[in-house]
Amino acid sequence: MSSAKSTNRLIYLPLGGAGEIGMNAYVYGYGEPDKERLIVVDLGVTFPDMDTSPGVDLIMPDVAWLEARKDRIEAILITHAHEDHVGGVGHLWERLGAPVYAREFTAHIARLKMADVGLPDGTVHTVAAWPHMSTFGPFKVGFIPVSHSIPESAGLVIDTPAGRVIHSGDFKIDHTPVVGDPFDQALWAEAAKDGVRALMCDSTNVFSPAPGRSEATLAEPIEELLKNATGMVVATTFASNIARLKTIATAAEKAGRSVCLLGRAMRRMVEAGLETGVLDGFPKTILAEDAVDVPRQNLLLLVTGSQGERRAASAQLANGKYMGLTLKEGDTFLFSSKTIPGNERGVIRIMNQLSEKGVDVIDDRGGLYHVSGHANRPDLEKMHDIVKPKMLVPMHGEHRHLREHAKLGEAKGIGSIVAVNGMMIDLTSNYPHVAEYVETGRTYLDGSVQIGALDGIVRDRIRMALNGLVVVTLIMDENDEPLGEPWCEIQGLPETGRNNAALVEVLEGELNQFLMRADDKILTDDDKLEKELSQVARRVAQSEIGKKPEVMVVISRLS
Amino acid sequence: MSSAKSTNRLIYLPLGGAGEIGMNAYVYGYGEPDKERLIVVDLGVTFPDMDTSPGVDLIMPDVAWLEARKDRIEAILITHAHEDHVGGVGHLWERLGAPVYAREFTAHIARLKMADVGLPDGTVHTVAAWPHMSTFGPFKVGFIPVSHSIPESAGLVIDTPAGRVIHSGDFKIDHTPVVGDPFDQALWAEAAKDGVRALMCDSTNVFSPAPGRSEATLAEPIEELLKNATGMVVATTFASNIARLKTIATAAEKAGRSVCLLGRAMRRMVEAGLETGVLDGFPKTILAEDAVDVPRQNLLLLVTGSQGERRAASAQLANGKYMGLTLKEGDTFLFSSKTIPGNERGVIRIMNQLSEKGVDVIDDRGGLYHVSGHANRPDLEKMHDIVKPKMLVPMHGEHRHLREHAKLGEAKGIGSIVAVNGMMIDLTSNYPHVAEYVETGRTYLDGSVQIGALDGIVRDRIRMALNGLVVVTLIMDENDEPLGEPWCEIQGLPETGRNNAALVEVLEGELNQFLMRADDKILTDDDKLEKELSQVARRVAQSEIGKKPEVMVVISRLS
Repeated sequence: MSSAKSTNRLIYLPLGGAGEIGMNAYVYGYGEPDKERLIVVDLGVTFPDMDTSPGVDLIMPDVAWLEARKDRIEAILITHAHEDHVGGVGHLWERLGAPVYAREFTAHIARLKMADVGLPDGTVHTVAAWPHMSTFGPFKVGFIPVSHSIPESAGLVIDTPAGRVIHSGDFKIDHTPVVGDPFDQALWAEAAKDGVRALMCDSTNVFSPAPGRSEATLAEPIEELLKNATGMVVATTFASNIARLKTIATAAEKAGRSVCLLGRAMRRMVEAGLETGVLDGFPKTILAEDAVDVPRQNLLLLVTGSQGERRAASAQLANGKYMGLTLKEGDTFLFSSKTIPGNERGVIRIMNQLSEKGVDVIDDRGGLYHVSGHANRPDLEKMHDIVKPKMLVPMHGEHRHLREHAKLGEAKGIGSIVAVNGMMIDLTSNYPHVAEYVETGRTYLDGSVQIGALDGIVRDRIRMALNGLVVVTLIMDENDEPLGEPWCEIQGLPETGRNNAALVEVLEGELNQFLMRADDKILTDDDKLEKELSQVARRVAQSEIGKKPEVMVVISRLS
Repeated sequence: MSSAKSTNRLIYLPLGGAGEIGMNAYVYGYGEPDKERLIVVDLGVTFPDMDTSPGVDLIMPDVAWLEARKDRIEAILITHAHEDHVGGVGHLWERLGAPVYAREFTAHIARLKMADVGLPDGTVHTVAAWPHMSTFGPFKVGFIPVSHSIPESAGLVIDTPAGRVIHSGDFKIDHTPVVGDPFDQALWAEAAKDGVRALMCDSTNVFSPAPGRSEATLAEPIEELLKNATGMVVATTFASNIARLKTIATAAEKAGRSVCLLGRAMRRMVEAGLETGVLDGFPKTILAEDAVDVPRQNLLLLVTGSQGERRAASAQLANGKYMGLTLKEGDTFLFSSKTIPGNERGVIRIMNQLSEKGVDVIDDRGGLYHVSGHANRPDLEKMHDIVKPKMLVPMHGEHRHLREHAKLGEAKGIGSIVAVNGMMIDLTSNYPHVAEYVETGRTYLDGSVQIGALDGIVRDRIRMALNGLVVVTLIMDENDEPLGEPWCEIQGLPETGRNNAALVEVLEGELNQFLMRADDKILTDDDKLEKELSQVARRVAQSEIGKKPEVMVVISRLS
């Protein structure tokens, strides 16, 4: 099957998702160095925040390295339909151009992503599950079903001339996942039985010491809660957790409650589940306009916004009204979710708004109403034991997760390496080692433009937010003399400082003083003049308001 | 003792800390309506974040209501030396002018706060603990010792003509707090024995179901950890938790490690503890310049920055080097602290940087290395049982905490009310009720200026950060005709948009087109012209880059 010469190598290169949780993008290559044929696994996004990326719409891996090797990409494979795995496929596809493959439900969502940016359906191909395998250049790949918090998640069985490697994808070991494939240990053992060169493995929950719990354990407590609630019940979870939606909706039906889905993502996911056949037996839902007429104690709203997102249904309900529906004293709001670190403030804001309305908030404090979609530490060890890989490369984790997971592997005698974004790992020999360091980073979708995280654009926004802005306008006449005085405008700065003097007036006065003393060498040189005026403005502001603002100087020369 | 007429009333008014955790400021008043004599309890701060208050240095309660009634303020009482109780006293003191009272350690810290802003020592008076009582107008107040996560914390026993009320202050029920006063149930029972009209009570941990654990339980696990660690150990906690510092330092000494304090707040707090006598038996510490010569396995660093603060010692050590000290593989970093919601990202950043250096990070996951300073739910109930108040007003909590705590009170038959900032509660009759709504808010310390949270200044900063900025400069000649073309500069926006055209050029072209078509009614009116140019700029940007920026228009008229 293989004409592999000794110079050929098998490489693994994370471009996103290794050293962070989010925007997954992994590359496998086989061939002579710098001539490897490539497959890309997942093209995900991560979400912006005010601290690091104000105003940005989405964050994606920088695929410049791949783009420069576009002709070597055989395929883009998507393991499952979570945003951090499929969210970037539409935005990045034109830069990479290769065909996209996924199992049916995931392909359905990928096609929606393509449609969102005006790309045709034909870019995405549906593949059957392992043991079916597809050939992509030197690779043969099978999508092996695995349980996770979204239906039809898959690991990848990747045959290469250097042997078989397995990419776990995001997974948990769940034998009763309610919707989607149960974890099938025999199937995984079968895939591993002839030896596995390397396992690339999810690391998210390596610090969780207890075995993970099954999705099915939630049905009883949620039924109990819905039966005992007296008013309206609102439940929120990730829209893509279709099993959870089914558990909650079924519990509502049993408690004599009509189910209403609120939020675009929620409806889109349930429709995708029904259309692709992964979801059946979902209770009949009603529309928001009909829900308003249902007695509160007979209603369940399933809403988006479990992470406190400002525009989602949950935030709007907490804020007042959504689609004609309002919450009031005696209603119950269930967070069937975990708050992702960094989202705490938004979630707490909603909890307090609900408290103000007299709504009882139930979160996952006790672990009754939510289970994780990722394998905990003992489950990771179980996976190692099933796959018995020669090498382990932890992925899908921050540095601390990868390091801990690699330690776990080493302790078992599996050759393990901490590989973060940009570390190209050679898997050809008996121990994983770094072959090259590749430049990686983040690409921001900002409005309709893709910008680099380090382009300075977002840095300038952060500086304006921290420091405020002074704009100095100056007109220079034909003789390179100031025409009148400089003019200042401020944005994001207090109008008065020390001694209640108007900041703008003090600035203009001092800038004018400076100009009156300035010599021709400065007055005739825009760069010098700009620099000097900025310095004066900053110094004056520091003295007046205790702050050094950003300064923009606009010089107009009449000539 | 009292000449109270029936028109006199006893009021409680939170200006900060009720409906939020942070910037505590509570007012008690007694007298005829609108003539009450007032005491202020605590003047704390809360900390800014990029989402809501970029560039701000500190957040304080808006004391405008108090300032307008300055002549009625008898005293400012500080319960304990945490920043959210004492941090605003220096910045706000001149606006209120009343003398400040606290127990010795707290007074020491309050004087440092005064000195920080150039105010004299004499503004702060030291008072002895209850049963000593001081008279402030119609009030007699005793500072009753209570255990908390800082030494010399106090509740307030406040005698008024309408009876005794008790202000719990921040507290936990800890009989072995290592440093500072153990909780003395007999003392509190004594204070309550003749009946208590109302208890104003800490609500922070009302959702924590198990009884709180004592500070002393930490000694053993921390000793164990320090004994078993092979490299350098770095531990971080709140600098003000002097008991924790002592526990950690003592454990280090036992393990044959020298102790080095890093970070200004850390040294300042230990010095304050020693100077005021609340701290004794603290191991000898060494300076950073000497620590560099100590073998790693014989060294413990106690550092600031448990909340991931960017400039604190822990962040700098994680980043590389601090005071000549560096971390490396085999070292251990202990977070003897809980991450306050909203600070997760900063803490996780440090954890990952440490992981990159091969440093083992130990946090409070298992509850071994940290205990809370606040009373848990059963301890709150115990406090209710000891004090047996007629009324309960929960404080020091977000709305959800106050509501839950009030429910707890009501369930016991104690008249309880949810009172958030600005709700003036009348405590004169048998059930607490809202007497008035007072306008409250937040004051930002921004550089050296105090600005209002709703002044629009910070809103403008946030807008620039989210939307970027276009500055349009236009010179109009003596005939009200544009002199040349308008000039655009951008800040925080991509340079090129659709079709790779330069954004600035497209903007200038379209603005010029507009000006050429504009009639005199617009060209002669700065407001109209500015509005129209802004609209054009926003529309063009939306089309070019998919984003509507902030626009500043500067028109210079030659005349």
